[in-house]
Amino acid sequence: RRTGYPEVIYGAGKTAEQIIGIVTAMKERQKSILATRVDSKKAAAILKTLPFLDYDATSETLIARAKKVEEVGNIAIVTAGTSDMKVAEEAAVTAEIFGNHVTRIYDVGVAGIHRLFAKLEIIRQANVVIVIAGMEGALTSVVGGLVDHPVIAVPTSIGYGSNLGGMTPLLTMLNSCSSGISVVNIDNGFGAAYNASMINRLISEAHE
Amino acid sequence: RRTGYPEVIYGAGKTAEQIIGIVTAMKERQKSILATRVDSKKAAAILKTLPFLDYDATSETLIARAKKVEEVGNIAIVTAGTSDMKVAEEAAVTAEIFGNHVTRIYDVGVAGIHRLFAKLEIIRQANVVIVIAGMEGALTSVVGGLVDHPVIAVPTSIGYGSNLGGMTPLLTMLNSCSSGISVVNIDNGFGAAYNASMINRLISEAHE
Amino acid sequence: RRTGYPEVIYGAGKTAEQIIGIVTAMKERQKSILATRVDSKKAAAILKTLPFLDYDATSETLIARAKKVEEVGNIAIVTAGTSDMKVAEEAAVTAEIFGNHVTRIYDVGVAGIHRLFAKLEIIRQANVVIVIAGMEGALTSVVGGLVDHPVIAVPTSIGYGSNLGGMTPLLTMLNSCSSGISVVNIDNGFGAAYNASMINRLISEAHE
Amino acid sequence: RRTGYPEVIYGAGKTAEQIIGIVTAMKERQKSILATRVDSKKAAAILKTLPFLDYDATSETLIARAKKVEEVGNIAIVTAGTSDMKVAEEAAVTAEIFGNHVTRIYDVGVAGIHRLFAKLEIIRQANVVIVIAGMEGALTSVVGGLVDHPVIAVPTSIGYGSNLGGMTPLLTMLNSCSSGISVVNIDNGFGAAYNASMINRLISEAHE
Amino acid sequence: RRTGYPEVIYGAGKTAEQIIGIVTAMKERQKSILATRVDSKKAAAILKTLPFLDYDATSETLIARAKKVEEVGNIAIVTAGTSDMKVAEEAAVTAEIFGNHVTRIYDVGVAGIHRLFAKLEIIRQANVVIVIAGMEGALTSVVGGLVDHPVIAVPTSIGYGSNLGGMTPLLTMLNSCSSGISVVNIDNGFGAAYNASMINRLISEAHE
Amino acid sequence: RRTGYPEVIYGAGKTAEQIIGIVTAMKERQKSILATRVDSKKAAAILKTLPFLDYDATSETLIARAKKVEEVGNIAIVTAGTSDMKVAEEAAVTAEIFGNHVTRIYDVGVAGIHRLFAKLEIIRQANVVIVIAGMEGALTSVVGGLVDHPVIAVPTSIGYGSNLGGMTPLLTMLNSCSSGISVVNIDNGFGAAYNASMINRLISEAHE
Amino acid sequence: RRTGYPEVIYGAGKTAEQIIGIVTAMKERQKSILATRVDSKKAAAILKTLPFLDYDATSETLIARAKKVEEVGNIAIVTAGTSDMKVAEEAAVTAEIFGNHVTRIYDVGVAGIHRLFAKLEIIRQANVVIVIAGMEGALTSVVGGLVDHPVIAVPTSIGYGSNLGGMTPLLTMLNSCSSGISVVNIDNGFGAAYNASMINRLISEAHE
Amino acid sequence: RRTGYPEVIYGAGKTAEQIIGIVTAMKERQKSILATRVDSKKAAAILKTLPFLDYDATSETLIARAKKVEEVGNIAIVTAGTSDMKVAEEAAVTAEIFGNHVTRIYDVGVAGIHRLFAKLEIIRQANVVIVIAGMEGALTSVVGGLVDHPVIAVPTSIGYGSNLGGMTPLLTMLNSCSSGISVVNIDNGFGAAYNASMINRLISEAHE
Ligand SMILES: Nc1ncnc2c1ncn2[C@@H]1O[C@H](COP(=O)(O)O)[C@@H](O)[C@H]1O
Ligand SMILES: Nc1ncnc2c1ncn2[C@@H]1O[C@H](COP(=O)(O)O)[C@@H](O)[C@H]1O
Ligand SMILES: Nc1ncnc2c1ncn2[C@@H]1O[C@H](COP(=O)(O)O)[C@@H](O)[C@H]1O
Ligand SMILES: Nc1ncnc2c1ncn2[C@@H]1O[C@H](COP(=O)(O)O)[C@@H](O)[C@H]1O
Ligand SMILES: [Mg+2]
Ligand SMILES: [Mg+2]
Ligand SMILES: [Mg+2]
Ligand SMILES: [Mg+2]
Ligand SMILES: [Mg+2]
Ligand SMILES: [Mg+2]
Ligand SMILES: [Mg+2]
Ligand SMILES: [Mg+2]
Repeated sequence: RRTGYPEVIYGAGKTAEQIIGIVTAMKERQKSILATRVDSKKAAAILKTLPFLDYDATSETLIARAKKVEEVGNIAIVTAGTSDMKVAEEAAVTAEIFGNHVTRIYDVGVAGIHRLFAKLEIIRQANVVIVIAGMEGALTSVVGGLVDHPVIAVPTSIGYGSNLGGMTPLLTMLNSCSSGISVVNIDNGFGAAYNASMINRLISEAHE
Repeated sequence: RRTGYPEVIYGAGKTAEQIIGIVTAMKERQKSILATRVDSKKAAAILKTLPFLDYDATSETLIARAKKVEEVGNIAIVTAGTSDMKVAEEAAVTAEIFGNHVTRIYDVGVAGIHRLFAKLEIIRQANVVIVIAGMEGALTSVVGGLVDHPVIAVPTSIGYGSNLGGMTPLLTMLNSCSSGISVVNIDNGFGAAYNASMINRLISEAHE
Repeated sequence: RRTGYPEVIYGAGKTAEQIIGIVTAMKERQKSILATRVDSKKAAAILKTLPFLDYDATSETLIARAKKVEEVGNIAIVTAGTSDMKVAEEAAVTAEIFGNHVTRIYDVGVAGIHRLFAKLEIIRQANVVIVIAGMEGALTSVVGGLVDHPVIAVPTSIGYGSNLGGMTPLLTMLNSCSSGISVVNIDNGFGAAYNASMINRLISEAHE
Repeated sequence: RRTGYPEVIYGAGKTAEQIIGIVTAMKERQKSILATRVDSKKAAAILKTLPFLDYDATSETLIARAKKVEEVGNIAIVTAGTSDMKVAEEAAVTAEIFGNHVTRIYDVGVAGIHRLFAKLEIIRQANVVIVIAGMEGALTSVVGGLVDHPVIAVPTSIGYGSNLGGMTPLLTMLNSCSSGISVVNIDNGFGAAYNASMINRLISEAHE
Repeated sequence: RRTGYPEVIYGAGKTAEQIIGIVTAMKERQKSILATRVDSKKAAAILKTLPFLDYDATSETLIARAKKVEEVGNIAIVTAGTSDMKVAEEAAVTAEIFGNHVTRIYDVGVAGIHRLFAKLEIIRQANVVIVIAGMEGALTSVVGGLVDHPVIAVPTSIGYGSNLGGMTPLLTMLNSCSSGISVVNIDNGFGAAYNASMINRLISEAHE
Repeated sequence: RRTGYPEVIYGAGKTAEQIIGIVTAMKERQKSILATRVDSKKAAAILKTLPFLDYDATSETLIARAKKVEEVGNIAIVTAGTSDMKVAEEAAVTAEIFGNHVTRIYDVGVAGIHRLFAKLEIIRQANVVIVIAGMEGALTSVVGGLVDHPVIAVPTSIGYGSNLGGMTPLLTMLNSCSSGISVVNIDNGFGAAYNASMINRLISEAHE
Repeated sequence: RRTGYPEVIYGAGKTAEQIIGIVTAMKERQKSILATRVDSKKAAAILKTLPFLDYDATSETLIARAKKVEEVGNIAIVTAGTSDMKVAEEAAVTAEIFGNHVTRIYDVGVAGIHRLFAKLEIIRQANVVIVIAGMEGALTSVVGGLVDHPVIAVPTSIGYGSNLGGMTPLLTMLNSCSSGISVVNIDNGFGAAYNASMINRLISEAHE
Repeated sequence: RRTGYPEVIYGAGKTAEQIIGIVTAMKERQKSILATRVDSKKAAAILKTLPFLDYDATSETLIARAKKVEEVGNIAIVTAGTSDMKVAEEAAVTAEIFGNHVTRIYDVGVAGIHRLFAKLEIIRQANVVIVIAGMEGALTSVVGGLVDHPVIAVPTSIGYGSNLGGMTPLLTMLNSCSSGISVVNIDNGFGAAYNASMINRLISEAHE
């Protein structure tokens, strides 16, 4: 993998002890470290042993920065509602530690579409746009129709009843009538950011 | 049922002979008659025996008008794409024979949202709005957010793959983040129009 | 949006602190406030800071009334069983704070259909009928066949096994053989009331 | 198996030749023969070789009666719509050749519930009631609530969209709030009649 | 409803207070009372106020017997595994309080089919057989093929993974290649017993 | 791959021309050739050009035998019904050309379990047993409980309604309460035979 | 939209007449035209009126090239089997008319993984990789793990039984353990190419 | 059943008391005992009464070894990730107590396929290979393509969102494009080991 990229730990289903072990081993390699899906209780246990880590409670990520990375290009992260923020921040934290400049545009769901239009010029300046939405996920199609850059869609599990744990916005996004949208798994902020980072960095590096 | 209302035959799964029989019996009662879901082949067979019927190939409806009904109020029928027209015309023909004024606004899907905004004032003048969309059905949420009158949403079976025969726009519409939307079965243009007619006529009659 | 309408907070997935923040900001605007999906524990925490709010434990709603609204027209709320009451009261509280007169007809499921017939004249007097049912949701079709006004159906997640968390009554309601029924998401009492309120108020205002 | 019972062939997926072979072999045993799911084209081919068989086009059954069976007891077969008749007649023909008296009550769906009430006393006289319905299948719950004898429910594949080929009425029937209902597979008129026959004959024989 | 039958309360989703209220009201009518789906904690609370009730922990039922009912006929209750016992006892307790003689044949699943054959003659003596099975539910088809009396099948939610909370045995039972099987909802021991009771009592009464 | 093994073509979705091309190229290598899923029309077209091929209409396979293979060991192929024969013969033809001795035991479904018991000793002599069943697939669990050798289960798409195109027997087989069963895709006779062949030949070769 | 981009018609569900009308109107604008999902019969009808169009039977596309576009960058299109070629060519034709250089690497599914490794260096040279696979879609995860550039995955409807019309590879791709993969709808070769084109052209333009 | 085989208890859904009872009864028969799915809390309670049992916390198994079994042949157990270890150890412990030699190859998922290739020769030496994977389960197809011995695939419930509790890797494995793979239920390590043991022991015994 590309030099300079952080090492990543997927924290779900790992114990605090296991994560401590992996981080300690990684430390040797002098790279930045990102652990996702670490809930606050597990984080507290890890921080006792590894106090140099930074924990971010919203995104549930643990981070060790090897050295300051330059943040290149521009990835816009757009969410429909405030409940999508956890997924959005997993994406944002990931994108930043992978060396991307991130622009956050939160809470611009289509129920009040003027909020989206107010931010449209900012969104259009990004190389890549990550759209994050639960409920019915309609925001993706609207953004996809308004911007000419690649859109990576993340359905979230926010909703109830026939939302089916995020299957509804997932299906919405896969069937979008707008072109230029591709989709990752439900709640997969990390995956969206990883994809967006690849694209944004390829463009930024080509500009150099 | 309300006097003046037409009699309705659901043509799917009925033979030409059965429909001829029902229409002939209904004729006695001197009401208008609407038969839906009559494909062109079945219609041709029926028209040989009952040449006074009018067949509309787009909506696949057969109609006998007892007398001119006054078309009151205003129902807007809004579609995302041209492929939704069959369902839209089933709704339009139904609404008209039930005595409602209908405004058609077709092909204003969110992939090119300016088309919708160009028609917004017209849509907002209706007492009730029927939104018809296949694929991912996102148009419903956008319209629901922009108008303050009741929206009746009709998912269509237009789409492929994970569209699942219209289940995707159905789920989208049920989970909409916009308020004021209620939903009928996939491709059920008749049902949407029947609902809209009830509401539009109650308002129109109250105005009198 | 229409003047006089309350501001609404969807409490699910928001912390007590977040809700306190939003209510405090809204207070400025001197409108009524409705927060839904606030469980009793969260409500207790909020009431400590904002003791002027009224909490209703059945509907799990918090309310601040700016001034007495006149309740116009008539919305009937009909339930199949006593377990559907939580959803029914979410609908009732919503409809009332939006300025509608509400008639409650609870526990009239089709297993003992005489209970429904005993209340039929009362139900028929409403401008709009909300039917709320879990299990198999058959009540909707029966009511839809008996009343000539719009019926808004709310499936509930009451049931077990092949009920699939409310998907069964949802599908029942969408496929009803009775005309005049439209459907909202599982357990969405608020959404049904919002729709019903739009229709009831349009009729009531037209009468003026 | 019980003496006097006919031999049964499930015709779906068997060729005309295979059915001719099986019937010819059975003939030896001098019992009545019932072949279900034989479409008209296959039947024509079979009748050329075995002209003594009776074909019924509605139920798509072929029958050879060994001798007149006495039809005992009473099984009511109740349908929601005319499109359910194919399944109903499969049930009726089966019940009759198994020696049961059958009472047909067709087209009494809940959209116009007075039609059901008009027939209620007739239905209540049966030892067992078979209820056959497609769309949303709500008729089952209403009948189940009104009669005190066993109800066997048959969902049909009549419907469209979210009907899902009969899965919707199947789920409706399994989740009925009325007691005394058990369910067979979609379109399984034969199975319902077989069950009903067992019950009806046990009662009738006990009376002797 | 038939005189002599107990009154039934479905305890799931009702509070101890609500159940106490209903039982107290019912007491007046001097009938037996059966409350199902009452977990041990709720039962303890109820018994403090209503110490005359009998609680059965396996079936999670509360019972008040008005007077000794004669148990007529014979219903066999057959289970595949020991984990199905909770559902089986709900059925058994229900059948007994409705006045039926019950024969329990537990733990005879098809993995060791000799256990079933060892009990076959006992099973065949019943007027009706209730078969209760989770996992893949194959026992139903085997029993259905071996007995000539009506079989009522109850799928249970025992299993994991692709068992889908009991949907797998439910589908198995609905698609059985054996005749004479009808099906109730997952875990619905009460419903199976209610059906079986109707049939068994009709036969028993006819014998008198 | 093992020397002596035939080359395999999956004929579904390939044109006659494509299959002719592949067979012609394979011919060079002087191995046996097996083409599965070749319907009779496609086969006729291929045989015109390549008359040395043998077509078997039941299994829809085309075969070219390089030289006589010795058929070692013993694979039992057991089916529930006659409609499963197409899948069974795909398995049998495949097993034979892969050099296995095959024992066919057809039409022994559990509705008449004595048919299975009559063949049990023959089945038990096989090294591996392939069980093929549609409808509810219960035969698999019964065979799995009676034999001590590996059972490979093949669900078929034979059935209707809630059979869901073979998903029901697939789920049944995956959830079997009998040990020693593993499962392949719906209708995949080839895959079952390939697996069985591996096992049977490993055992046979070890015996040498 | 970007100048120089072709105009696109989605041919599915449009009549030959409708397509002729749209193409004729577009012609005025002097841009290239791409119509997808035009089957050979519809194409023949269109070509009679508009003989200047080029029809490609594999991809089922109709094309009118306004002028030669320069094909920049490099998009690799990788398929698992030959049956995926229709979708692959829809992607390839689309990518080319949008001005991208395309490298085709077909039939390198994981059943014989050496075929993939033989082409790995060629794949790694592309700016973006489109992976197209039916059956179980595992190729995507393998490619995703081996290349460091963005992968756009297209599930196809090639398969049978529990493949569920492409839902299986769709789910596989969404849940991939490899990073850098995003997904479009089943069989959506056009959508994948549109996304890939955006990314490839942004990189190529940045290099200029 | 084969002499020398251990007796097995499926601990899920059994109380500590029930397991103690069964173990005590089995003890008499002087065979080894294996109890699976016993969580640590239940195990602690059992060990108080039956201190001779060995508890393994990873696999959640309780074991009593009657006498040392010779471990014959070779079963390879291959996992995609560390989170699959629980299922893998259930398989390993089962295989060992059934008298098989086990080779563990863990954490070789396809995201970094070099890890798998590094172990390939070791895997190829086994008589049977068990592949255990969650997420999208692609490892199975890759292993199936690389080894010529039977592969038994176990999907695990590791994953989130559209993983659907393991349904995604289950479907992946059933639809594999590689031959020689058969599948057991989600998380069914025991079942896979039981199958593998049958095959491995038949081969080992044949070698003797
Ligand atoms: N939140 C996340 N969702 C999905 N995948 C993730 C996430 N975080 C990390 N990953 C992936 O998990 C890999 C590390 O997995 P592991 O070796 O199990 O810790 C990383 O390389 C990422 O590809
Ligand atoms: N296109 C349609 N979709 C759904 N329901 C319809 C449609 N057209 C008519 N109906 C309903 O079918 C009823 C007539 O059914 P029938 O008596 O079977 O002809 C009408 O009263 C309507 O409620
Ligand atoms: N375990 C059960 N499962 C399903 N239905 C039940 C059960 N127990 C009771 N019932 C039904 O619930 C009805 C009482 O419901 P309720 O009036 O809500 O207490 C009874 O008449 C039965 O029809
Ligand atoms: N009926 C079948 N079902 C599933 N897979 C098959 C079948 N017949 C052949 N195959 C597989 O398809 C492969 C050949 O595929 P192909 O190269 O597309 O012809 C063979 O090696 C088998 O693994
Ligand atoms: Mg766009
Ligand atoms: Mg609105
Ligand atoms: Mg009505
Ligand atoms: Mg009843
Ligand atoms: Mg039987
Ligand atoms: Mg066995
Ligand atoms: Mg990669
Ligand atoms: Mg292999």
